[in-house]
Amino acid sequence: MIIKEKRYAFIGCDNSYKESNIVLFGAPFDSTSSFRPGSRFAPSSIRTDSIGMELYSPYLDKSLSEINVFDGGDLVLPFGDAKKSLDRIEKYTTQVVKDNKIPVMLGGEHLVTLGAVKGVLKKYPDLHVIHFDAHTDLRDEFFDEKLSHATVIRRVHDLIGDNKIFQFGIRSGEKEEFEWAKTHSCLTKFNFDGLESAIEKVKAKPVYFTIDLDVLDPSYFWGTGTPEPGGVTFLQLLEAMGKVAKGCKIVGCDINELSPPYDTSGASTAVACKLLRELLLQL
Amino acid sequence: MIIKEKRYAFIGCDNSYKESNIVLFGAPFDSTSSFRPGSRFAPSSIRTDSIGMELYSPYLDKSLSEINVFDGGDLVLPFGDAKKSLDRIEKYTTQVVKDNKIPVMLGGEHLVTLGAVKGVLKKYPDLHVIHFDAHTDLRDEFFDEKLSHATVIRRVHDLIGDNKIFQFGIRSGEKEEFEWAKTHSCLTKFNFDGLESAIEKVKAKPVYFTIDLDVLDPSYFWGTGTPEPGGVTFLQLLEAMGKVAKGCKIVGCDINELSPPYDTSGASTAVACKLLRELLLQL
Amino acid sequence: MIIKEKRYAFIGCDNSYKESNIVLFGAPFDSTSSFRPGSRFAPSSIRTDSIGMELYSPYLDKSLSEINVFDGGDLVLPFGDAKKSLDRIEKYTTQVVKDNKIPVMLGGEHLVTLGAVKGVLKKYPDLHVIHFDAHTDLRDEFFDEKLSHATVIRRVHDLIGDNKIFQFGIRSGEKEEFEWAKTHSCLTKFNFDGLESAIEKVKAKPVYFTIDLDVLDPSYFWGTGTPEPGGVTFLQLLEAMGKVAKGCKIVGCDINELSPPYDTSGASTAVACKLLRELLLQL
Amino acid sequence: MIIKEKRYAFIGCDNSYKESNIVLFGAPFDSTSSFRPGSRFAPSSIRTDSIGMELYSPYLDKSLSEINVFDGGDLVLPFGDAKKSLDRIEKYTTQVVKDNKIPVMLGGEHLVTLGAVKGVLKKYPDLHVIHFDAHTDLRDEFFDEKLSHATVIRRVHDLIGDNKIFQFGIRSGEKEEFEWAKTHSCLTKFNFDGLESAIEKVKAKPVYFTIDLDVLDPSYFWGTGTPEPGGVTFLQLLEAMGKVAKGCKIVGCDINELSPPYDTSGASTAVACKLLRELLLQL
Amino acid sequence: MIIKEKRYAFIGCDNSYKESNIVLFGAPFDSTSSFRPGSRFAPSSIRTDSIGMELYSPYLDKSLSEINVFDGGDLVLPFGDAKKSLDRIEKYTTQVVKDNKIPVMLGGEHLVTLGAVKGVLKKYPDLHVIHFDAHTDLRDEFFDEKLSHATVIRRVHDLIGDNKIFQFGIRSGEKEEFEWAKTHSCLTKFNFDGLESAIEKVKAKPVYFTIDLDVLDPSYFWGTGTPEPGGVTFLQLLEAMGKVAKGCKIVGCDINELSPPYDTSGASTAVACKLLRELLLQL
Amino acid sequence: MIIKEKRYAFIGCDNSYKESNIVLFGAPFDSTSSFRPGSRFAPSSIRTDSIGMELYSPYLDKSLSEINVFDGGDLVLPFGDAKKSLDRIEKYTTQVVKDNKIPVMLGGEHLVTLGAVKGVLKKYPDLHVIHFDAHTDLRDEFFDEKLSHATVIRRVHDLIGDNKIFQFGIRSGEKEEFEWAKTHSCLTKFNFDGLESAIEKVKAKPVYFTIDLDVLDPSYFWGTGTPEPGGVTFLQLLEAMGKVAKGCKIVGCDINELSPPYDTSGASTAVACKLLRELLLQL
Repeated sequence: MIIKEKRYAFIGCDNSYKESNIVLFGAPFDSTSSFRPGSRFAPSSIRTDSIGMELYSPYLDKSLSEINVFDGGDLVLPFGDAKKSLDRIEKYTTQVVKDNKIPVMLGGEHLVTLGAVKGVLKKYPDLHVIHFDAHTDLRDEFFDEKLSHATVIRRVHDLIGDNKIFQFGIRSGEKEEFEWAKTHSCLTKFNFDGLESAIEKVKAKPVYFTIDLDVLDPSYFWGTGTPEPGGVTFLQLLEAMGKVAKGCKIVGCDINELSPPYDTSGASTAVACKLLRELLLQL
Repeated sequence: MIIKEKRYAFIGCDNSYKESNIVLFGAPFDSTSSFRPGSRFAPSSIRTDSIGMELYSPYLDKSLSEINVFDGGDLVLPFGDAKKSLDRIEKYTTQVVKDNKIPVMLGGEHLVTLGAVKGVLKKYPDLHVIHFDAHTDLRDEFFDEKLSHATVIRRVHDLIGDNKIFQFGIRSGEKEEFEWAKTHSCLTKFNFDGLESAIEKVKAKPVYFTIDLDVLDPSYFWGTGTPEPGGVTFLQLLEAMGKVAKGCKIVGCDINELSPPYDTSGASTAVACKLLRELLLQL
Repeated sequence: MIIKEKRYAFIGCDNSYKESNIVLFGAPFDSTSSFRPGSRFAPSSIRTDSIGMELYSPYLDKSLSEINVFDGGDLVLPFGDAKKSLDRIEKYTTQVVKDNKIPVMLGGEHLVTLGAVKGVLKKYPDLHVIHFDAHTDLRDEFFDEKLSHATVIRRVHDLIGDNKIFQFGIRSGEKEEFEWAKTHSCLTKFNFDGLESAIEKVKAKPVYFTIDLDVLDPSYFWGTGTPEPGGVTFLQLLEAMGKVAKGCKIVGCDINELSPPYDTSGASTAVACKLLRELLLQL
Repeated sequence: MIIKEKRYAFIGCDNSYKESNIVLFGAPFDSTSSFRPGSRFAPSSIRTDSIGMELYSPYLDKSLSEINVFDGGDLVLPFGDAKKSLDRIEKYTTQVVKDNKIPVMLGGEHLVTLGAVKGVLKKYPDLHVIHFDAHTDLRDEFFDEKLSHATVIRRVHDLIGDNKIFQFGIRSGEKEEFEWAKTHSCLTKFNFDGLESAIEKVKAKPVYFTIDLDVLDPSYFWGTGTPEPGGVTFLQLLEAMGKVAKGCKIVGCDINELSPPYDTSGASTAVACKLLRELLLQL
Repeated sequence: MIIKEKRYAFIGCDNSYKESNIVLFGAPFDSTSSFRPGSRFAPSSIRTDSIGMELYSPYLDKSLSEINVFDGGDLVLPFGDAKKSLDRIEKYTTQVVKDNKIPVMLGGEHLVTLGAVKGVLKKYPDLHVIHFDAHTDLRDEFFDEKLSHATVIRRVHDLIGDNKIFQFGIRSGEKEEFEWAKTHSCLTKFNFDGLESAIEKVKAKPVYFTIDLDVLDPSYFWGTGTPEPGGVTFLQLLEAMGKVAKGCKIVGCDINELSPPYDTSGASTAVACKLLRELLLQL
Repeated sequence: MIIKEKRYAFIGCDNSYKESNIVLFGAPFDSTSSFRPGSRFAPSSIRTDSIGMELYSPYLDKSLSEINVFDGGDLVLPFGDAKKSLDRIEKYTTQVVKDNKIPVMLGGEHLVTLGAVKGVLKKYPDLHVIHFDAHTDLRDEFFDEKLSHATVIRRVHDLIGDNKIFQFGIRSGEKEEFEWAKTHSCLTKFNFDGLESAIEKVKAKPVYFTIDLDVLDPSYFWGTGTPEPGGVTFLQLLEAMGKVAKGCKIVGCDINELSPPYDTSGASTAVACKLLRELLLQL
């Protein structure tokens, strides 16, 4: 009885698959990271450091002990093979959604979102996407590759089509991407302006919610592969995330791009942990 | 004459004990830190890095050279024995207060506050406490221990009773702690709202002022054991600290929870140095 | 064709000297740094990490591909000999200005500004200076030295005289420096208040614009030798820099005091890269 | 089936308690560390990084898959209370030994050995100790404390008496400790000279084997609180450890003093993992 | 003339392709790294830090200024697509070999060797391989993948067949790999025993020489993804490398698995630089 | 009495100037470091970390408490002005030698040796020098500078002439330096071969002993500006140092080139501390 529980899960997420309606899992893949890899370690770091955080949210006056979440651990993804990795994510997500549970994926690099969207899309063909990020991720190719962290939202668009993607906080990309967005997605530069009206538009639709944590200013979150100065604050993101969680019918979501090797003090991992807690409590 | 002064003191605090009415000292104790130890190194780092800071405050238009502070160095505290460590802090503080000087303690982990409060309390039985922190620190026990950084304010309450503790910036704790606070302390979540009215209430009373630096958002202060996103800014803390220093009769104070091993760039230590300078100038 | 371009330049700045009207160059000198050296590595780090940044600015809707900048690489500066180093900077700057190009220097420590100002001053004897910094840099001597990062603006004043230097963001210095500034320079403490009126005053004059990046709060920029809490935000600096670039006739400028050894995550270097991109696009 | 095993154990040590004759467990305690804490994180780091190591030993031509080891996880130890922590270690070890299994403890600081020795001693009153270390650990008191990493072997001597402790690799201590050892323990300075004859002496006795990893030269193992230059090589330690494991009847053992916060590259943790694998295979 | 050479090359390797008989190039690929990525940064770090090293070898009394080497920069390799990356390496190597030059490749992870071997094999069908490594790299599959850093030598064997691969320093792998090696390759555990006789056997043959730097003990080289204690010393590797370079007809070679993010002090990069200098001087 | 001694000195070196025949002092200068500065922090780090070391040497069976050493603190040296810095070192050393004490200087970069040699030379015109180093330091100029860490032994030769300098461990330099050494100094490559015969030659002469710690292999000492693989071991250096200390009449000495910013684990500082203790005990 003096022995610590040895099971390995995000704090408070040790419910069984059966009893849970939320399924947390890790997608430790970072093979296409062009600048600085390391996000593969994010799911593991988030779980480990979560023990330094309370179950209870003073923001929501609610505790993880009051809800049921199953932490499914990490998928085994073949490094160096993006296609096969996405297939595995898709397969897992498909099952979770089929079982009427909400998949919450921890990246990994942003490309993993494509696998999860594919899995969710089968059940929800009218899927809409809300996307928080510093980067457009709308390239058609990146170093000749169709599958890349820099093309992921473009690939999602291939699947779901025009006017279904709502992007916020964007402050980096090629001119062509911003141009392309004008007719194909709804892109808001720099901040969350217009988030309420976007939520209004999609509130009757199934929504996939993807958060690239580099939407945060590097002052709040520097443990990431490509820090982009000029981002939002932690409290702004917390508030925006809360609006989406409350206003939309989320059928799948992910938090990605924490890169623990660049988080020397653990502060960025703490940000990811707290955002995940708040997200889970609001789903 | 070309030899540097070899005495080891916070910048500008090289007055004698006798001529000083403020006594700075270190309490390098971190044995109960549950997550990541290291705050034992804080007093030493603060002194060393203080040479990179000016004596003069452009905020107050006043210099450390205009006041008399004695830097008493660090107490020798037995690691692994919280009780004996607190006894030594109490003994030292008692003497300082008896000599009509204000003790300013550099932690160490937050538990050290208990020793100092005990020392001050003998002379000032009607002591009130102003507490800036990210954490409630109101547990009754932590891993079966009564003496812990997570229980310290509860222990202080054991000594001074209800409605004498004013807590600000709190954003982490168990639900039970927040509940308990409703009837026993005056707890303000997230920020410094209501600080002026608290000062108004205690202005005729002797006040012990304890600052856990993790009240700051980790973007401003990440060199600490348990970073809690969602905190106040440096300028907000500076302003709040100034209000307390100006509006209250401070009879003892401390600054704690800097953990230099996690301050890879020295920026968190610089924050501690500057806050200490501003605090000393306003006492 | 599958080989990466091997030339070593800031991203998008690979134009020839002849076709460019802006000349970027590095001054990797940090020998007088009193606290923590390392800024000598800044030009090299900025170039290397610039490949992680886009050419296109969504702030200005303009790309580095639309302008011509020559990256002249780094000057070879003799460490340990401040005078000779400044002579080389002056010589190089003189030539650039003579060729009707704008020199943009990457420090190095702030002392390098003195060499560049000397070079520019020959052609523009009525030179005015706009100075963003956390520190006054107005000492007459520092550890008996006339040439130091802590005296550089005072030395500039020796050359150009009273009321031609406009300082912003200043929050650290000796009392005497602030006093001296009252009659010799135009110093604004803490922020950019009064920047518009300063720009108004100098708009018909040739302006040298020097940015010590530690004007930023350490939360945004901690990779520097002497972090000073209480500074401006990234967006405030970006905006203020834009006003100067738009409102003044800049004949020379520099960005200095990034210290890569203290930038463990690369976030401070990312800040320097982005500010440089925005500055180049507005010159 | 594509999900990773979530149970948290040293690689290959996922057998049940019942079927195993070796019981691995962590004692994450470092409260008395006088210089630099952090060994509390060792058990967790060793388990996590063990996945980068093979099960198979080419030294022994044997694999962890061929033996049965139960990894019992970490004890919950109250930081700041050395006595209570030791009690818990003793209690756990007592049970393991009673069940005819060999306890293999992962420290933590070296003081934890005292708890385990107490647990083992009840069953094996004629216990002898083989001790590899850079430090004598023979002080009677350390900063007035009887229970400390610097007194642990002296406390063990209190329990088992003269001429039962064999120390190797020792190269740091007070003169008095070396003097004391001459009549109370068998101390070999610097290396493993005389190890064979020591093994010869104790081969019929129950032996507790304690390895303070700082016996290694810091070139091989720098991730520790008090690195002592002049130590043995990895291969020397591997060989000496093998001799003890082969020649003695080990009834309990431990590996301690890895401090992950100072192991920036993971190489010291890799050393601990490999030594543990080799030790387990030879028990 | 006071401007530093801006071309980006390993020190002293700034000859033209035409005049050089050695072609150095980088293969910055690490997508299949299973444990800790980062070797993609190795070619760049090696070039940058090479400026801290002398051209002259006191071991050989010879200088890089006396030979002609072309540094071709880095290949552009699509992260996340191992197959396409290997194709590009093969294509480039094929050209170099066709032009009667010796390719010297800087990895990247060890998988890159497969591409280079393929390129060399076309011209030299009787190719033999000398392989220095801590790991067997003989798995047939790794996490279901045929192309991986853990399978690379097995894939090379697929191309060149039995008894043509000579492995030294091996101290980690699965039992099956060591078994397989007994009949298919010539594997020497732990050290370079038998190197002379291996050289004797292959001296009339074209040899590809691949050095995984983790053959070194982590005390000499810890900046690598999977440090394996128990390796050879720097001087042993230097000597062994010299024997191969002198005794064999090397038609291609590589140095791989430096991972700069784990080389916090630069010492591992210095090892790579010096080994490369000595290798180039002996080819 | 429970307060720690606040005076700042190397452990056990708190005797008065008058009663001591050895004077320890720091020369925190690194302005000419061409590659990576930081050695300015060495004296301070050595003093701070010395508290983790014992006074007693088990090698010599002697304690620092048995001898009298005065720790004079650090000289104030003007960064960026090599000449003036050397003048101050010379002035201080001159006084120490005049008072019949032995100066033991802690660098700083190696150039500081020049100042100390000048100070000692006045009293001992027939001075000989024993020099342990990885680098020749025999350039006549370095980047056009006569005063540099890379020219220091050449400058010493300017003062004392041919055949009076004995160099050991040298493994890096330009070809010209090695050539020059053949007729002007006695240079031993790589190790300490011939040290006894050198000692024999100089035993009747006054000797200045200068130890550049990078003579050690980086596996033992990586916290230095320019790590050079292929060096001696800690025990080899300890032994060689002992021979010099015992066999020669040392009239001045120094230990230099520790660079704490690159010593992330503290192990290199521990090496410096221990070597200094052993040196002091043998003088």
